[in-house]
This record gives sequence, C-alpha cells and structure tokens, in this order.
Amino acid sequence: MTAIGLQDIVVADTAISYVNGEKGQLVYRGHWAKDLAVHHTFEEVAHLIWYGSLPSPEKFVEFQAKFVKERELPDYIHSILNVLPADMTMMDVIRTVISALGTSGYEYPPTFDQAISLTAKLPTIIAYRYHRLRGREIVKPRKDLLYSENYLYMLNGECALPAQVRALDSYMVLTIEHGMNSSTFAGRVVASTHSDLVSSITAALGALKGPLHGGAPAQVTAMLEAIGTKENAEHWVRNALEQGTRLMGFGHRIYKTVDPRAVALRDIAQQLAGDDYWLDLAIHTEDVILRLLKEYKPNLKLNTNVEFYSAAVMKAVGLDGDLFTPTFAASRMVGWTAHCIEAVSSRLIYPESRYIGDMPAVE
Amino acid sequence: MTAIGLQDIVVADTAISYVNGEKGQLVYRGHWAKDLAVHHTFEEVAHLIWYGSLPSPEKFVEFQAKFVKERELPDYIHSILNVLPADMTMMDVIRTVISALGTSGYEYPPTFDQAISLTAKLPTIIAYRYHRLRGREIVKPRKDLLYSENYLYMLNGECALPAQVRALDSYMVLTIEHGMNSSTFAGRVVASTHSDLVSSITAALGALKGPLHGGAPAQVTAMLEAIGTKENAEHWVRNALEQGTRLMGFGHRIYKTVDPRAVALRDIAQQLAGDDYWLDLAIHTEDVILRLLKEYKPNLKLNTNVEFYSAAVMKAVGLDGDLFTPTFAASRMVGWTAHCIEAVSSRLIYPESRYIGDMPAVE
Repeated sequence: MTAIGLQDIVVADTAISYVNGEKGQLVYRGHWAKDLAVHHTFEEVAHLIWYGSLPSPEKFVEFQAKFVKERELPDYIHSILNVLPADMTMMDVIRTVISALGTSGYEYPPTFDQAISLTAKLPTIIAYRYHRLRGREIVKPRKDLLYSENYLYMLNGECALPAQVRALDSYMVLTIEHGMNSSTFAGRVVASTHSDLVSSITAALGALKGPLHGGAPAQVTAMLEAIGTKENAEHWVRNALEQGTRLMGFGHRIYKTVDPRAVALRDIAQQLAGDDYWLDLAIHTEDVILRLLKEYKPNLKLNTNVEFYSAAVMKAVGLDGDLFTPTFAASRMVGWTAHCIEAVSSRLIYPESRYIGDMPAVE
Repeated sequence: MTAIGLQDIVVADTAISYVNGEKGQLVYRGHWAKDLAVHHTFEEVAHLIWYGSLPSPEKFVEFQAKFVKERELPDYIHSILNVLPADMTMMDVIRTVISALGTSGYEYPPTFDQAISLTAKLPTIIAYRYHRLRGREIVKPRKDLLYSENYLYMLNGECALPAQVRALDSYMVLTIEHGMNSSTFAGRVVASTHSDLVSSITAALGALKGPLHGGAPAQVTAMLEAIGTKENAEHWVRNALEQGTRLMGFGHRIYKTVDPRAVALRDIAQQLAGDDYWLDLAIHTEDVILRLLKEYKPNLKLNTNVEFYSAAVMKAVGLDGDLFTPTFAASRMVGWTAHCIEAVSSRLIYPESRYIGDMPAVE
C-alpha cells in the first residue's frame, strides 16, 4: 500500500505520550501534561518521561545530582565550538557538537545515563555558542540551579526573575514530548538499525531544524513586536485581516480543537502577566485575534497553537529569535531519548518505494 | 492502520532506482546496475544517479573538474579532525565532520553542487582520520585520479594496482543506490521537514552505522581469513556446517533469489582473480559453500549476498575492517543526496503512534 507522508499510519506502540487532536488532549505516561506544567519542574517531568514515574524526594536528589554533574562539556568540545564558522545556525552547531560527543561511552544500546548526559549538556552547548558568536565571555553552568534557571543564567550571565523561570520551565514541560512527530520518528528510524543514541539524536535535531516541523516561532514574536501595545492590538489585527496577512500562531496540523499546550501556557501566563509586559500583551492579543477571526472568517475554526504562547514566553524571558528552535530542542531531547530507549526492542524500519522511472530493454 | 517496520508500505515515488527482490533485479534510472558496473566508472554512474543520464564526454570533463575541486577540506575541518577523540568509530567521525560542513552554503533546498561537494569530501575525511589515528602523515587528495583510485591512493600513500582500482570502483557502482532502505528513508524523513541536505545526510550516516542496516562485513573477511587457502575451504566449511556456525555473506532481506550485486561482483572478481589472491579465494569459497549448503541444508534457499563479495573486494584492495562501512557510505552518499533532491517536492513525513500506557482519571 502507498502512504506518502505516513499520515494515520501507526509506526510504533509507545507508553511515553498520548496525543488526541480531536479532543485536545496531551498525556505523558498517565498524567495530563497541562497539570504537570503547573505542579512539577522540568527535571521531575523528565524523570517521569524516562523512568515512567515522578521521582520521590529521595530519588529526586539522586537524579538531580547526576543531572547537574553532566552539565560540563569535555575540553575537545570547547575546541570544536571555538572553530565552528560564524555562518552556521545554532541548530547546525548543536547537531555537530552532539554528534561529536559520540565516543565509546555512547555505544548501542541507548541508556538512561546517556540520555541524562545529552540533555544536561545541550543548554551548555547553546550558551557557549551564543556568547562565543557575540565575542563575549562564556558563562559556565551553575550546580545550584535547576535546569531552566541554569539555562537562563548561562545565557544572561545573571539569575532570571522567578516569573521568567516559571514561564520558561512550563514551556519546557509542555514541549518535552509529543508522540510520533517527524523528529522523533527520524530518531526511531535510526535507532531501529541498532545504531547508537547520538546517531538518533543528530537525526532528530536535523529534522527539528526544518521549518515544516520546528516551525518559525520568530514570526510570532515579530507579530507581537509589530503590535507593540495592547491599545494597538485591535487596529493592527483588523488591518492584517483586511490585508489578508497571515496571523501567526493559530491552527495546528494535529489539534482540530484547542492545543492543550497553548491553554496551559495561557493559564500560566495569566498568573504571571502582572509581572511581565509581553505575557500581558500576548493574552490581550490572543483575545483580540480570536474575536476578530470569528468576525472576519466565521467558517474557519482556527485555535491558538503552542507556538503563539511559546513565542510570548521566549519574548518574556528575553531569548533571541535564533534560540527558539534550539530551546525547543533542549526540552524535546528528553522525549527523543526516551523513544530511542523504548525502541530498542522494536523492528528495523525499512519501507518501500515505487519506481516511476524507465526500465531497461531486456536483461 | 498499524505498520511497525513499514514493510511493504510505499513511502515515496522515485525515479532513481528499482529493486526487484523476487527477480534479483537492480535498475538505476533505466540501466541495469550490473551492466553499469562493467562499463562505467563511479563518476559516470554518479552523474546518472543525480542528473538522470550518463554524461557525454564533454559533460564528463566539466563534471569531473567540479568533482575534483571539491575534494579539499576547509581548514576548520582539519582542526576538528585533529581534536576528535581516538575512541570514536570512523562512522562517528564522518557523521560529525559532515555535520560540521553545514554552513550557509548548505541551506535548504538541496542542490547538485552541495551533493557533489559532500561526495567529493567524504574520502578525504576518511583518509585524514585514518592516518591521524595511526599517527601517520596525512596524504592529500590528487587531482589527476578518479574517485576510487584517489581514495585508495589517499589511504595507501601510493597508487593501487589497476585490478584493485577496478574491483573497488565496481563495488562503488554497485552500492551507490538501493531504493528505500533505512538510511535513505531516514534522510528523506529529515528532508521532508525542509531541513537542509547536511541534516539529512547526518541522519542517513547514523542509520548506516547500525549493524542491522550497514551490516558487519568484517565478519566475512574474518571467515575468509580463517579459511586462508583454497585447499582448506571444503574442510573449513564442512566443519562450520556441522558445528552449526553461521556462514557470513549468504541470504538477504530483500533478495529472495540471487543478489544481482553479488553476481556482478563475482563476474568482475573472476576477470581479476588471476591478479588477486583474495578474489580467487572468495570465488572458490563461494562455490564450496553453495555446494555444501545444498548438501547440509537442502530446504534452505540461501544465495550469496553483496556483503560476501564486498568483503572480498575490501580484502583485495587492502582496506582494514573499520573502513568497510565508511567506504559503503562513500558510495551511498550519491544515492542519499539524489533522494534528498528528489524529495524536495514531497510531503512532510509525520506518522502516528499508538499509546499503550495508562490514562489519567478525569480531565
């Protein structure tokens, strides 16, 4: 049978996450993702995604100690980061450096320790390149900070505000895993050959780099920047709809109703909006857009997607546009690695193609 | 529908190659692969795979000049090769260095020039690492030699015998492309997100590294080395069959009859056998194995696969075991890049998974 794009083809059984696009549901190992984003940290949810359960307080201490220890990069990785040309995107750099970590410690089969190590190192890689590219001094990871807090610290050189840490951490939880998307699938195809974890993750990073998958969240921030103030929102959106300009951050390939990640991020944004200009503007702008979409395009059922509030969070925590997809990669690393570990016992993925070229005369 | 492994699922239309496992046929863009291996060089067949036609003499001169020019590596790539740890496999090194080439010149969409550049550089990368790891002086590429000849020259530091070049070049032609295998598919999944060519190729390299896909050709050479002489073949094989030792290089996932690549390589080996001890031994050993398999396992229909003669060729041209899969990658680079270029107009590959974990109580 022919299934170009593989839409509706189930390629794996998974106990990691459940996505119901019709009902707008996202479940991580028996828990609603939206609840986890409110009540748990990125580390706790990473533990859940990998090991299948939220950690007990004792387990958490042990797990966190291991996680923190892996943040440092080996010296030869610094040497590589120092020579990579300026005209590589951050995603190209990440793909290369993660690949360069692939020494004998990462041999098949994938392990939880390998997964922890790659996940712990990715923010350090991003921050190193970020400062290096701008000719600034590198900020080393701090052992006393949680994942999202340490990431913002390494990028900004100072501790972020609690509201910023909270917003980013919720974003990280809500994007940590999402069923069988293109990058996860690319990783699982590689894993199915019994290749190593690093090989799978470089494949997944390469897929996430593609705009049809990793998206173009910078376009939403550009829109929020263009709107600028709450007072200007209605005028700007009305004008955009009359000019036929596409509004970014609405509609989703899978979710035919509300994207549960957008709902959760909006809830958190609402709690923090008093503390942050951009979250406040995003909430107001969403209301205006949804109201005016009903007025201008009553037959179109467009809901806010995760990219809309992701962009608002990125803006609120002060991340530049070139860090959006890399930050997405930093959270999704957990989901990817969990899938590779789960895929160890699954079959070699080896599909067919249909030849549409010429045939030779006779053999 | 569920299709774990995607067996018999057509995921793409392609005009690049046709594999018929029942009839033992392999076609590259309207030509029998086995005929191309006899009558054409790797460069000519690469031109066919990429552009759809064998080059005219004038075209060939132009194409070859471009191809040769791209053999040199940028300086920062040398710096990276100099710091990569000794405990990375050659495939890990290739994946990392190809990824590191991903600067602005490799942006989406993939082009023929990008494909030529990656293909031209891969042997140079392999030879650099090969000598570096052994503490030897690097041998730079030569502009006056064809692809396979230059590859052997860079590895050995001297020109190979004509029979060796001929054997390796036939191998390269016969492994240049093979339908929708796991590595090509991994590359196409990445390409389907509109990610760049380098991202696709790193994914494909990662998949080829897996023993279920790239195989373990060193096991065949180990068998040939253990047999050692034609006189010892019957005794060794009979003993192996009685002990239940698996004979390497027989049977194939796709080919239910003869593997056309093995047939073609045997033909070429036969022409060259007078000049080479290992090709001679391989031909004799194949005959013995096929005869004794009929005697010991009359109900089993096992045919010689491409790996058997690939190993014989590798042995004949003096390549070490750690170069087998990398050399396979050097030829298959052409097929991978051709598929990524072809995939530009195809759909995002985004399959489904089936959740088999717990569900939360109520929302």
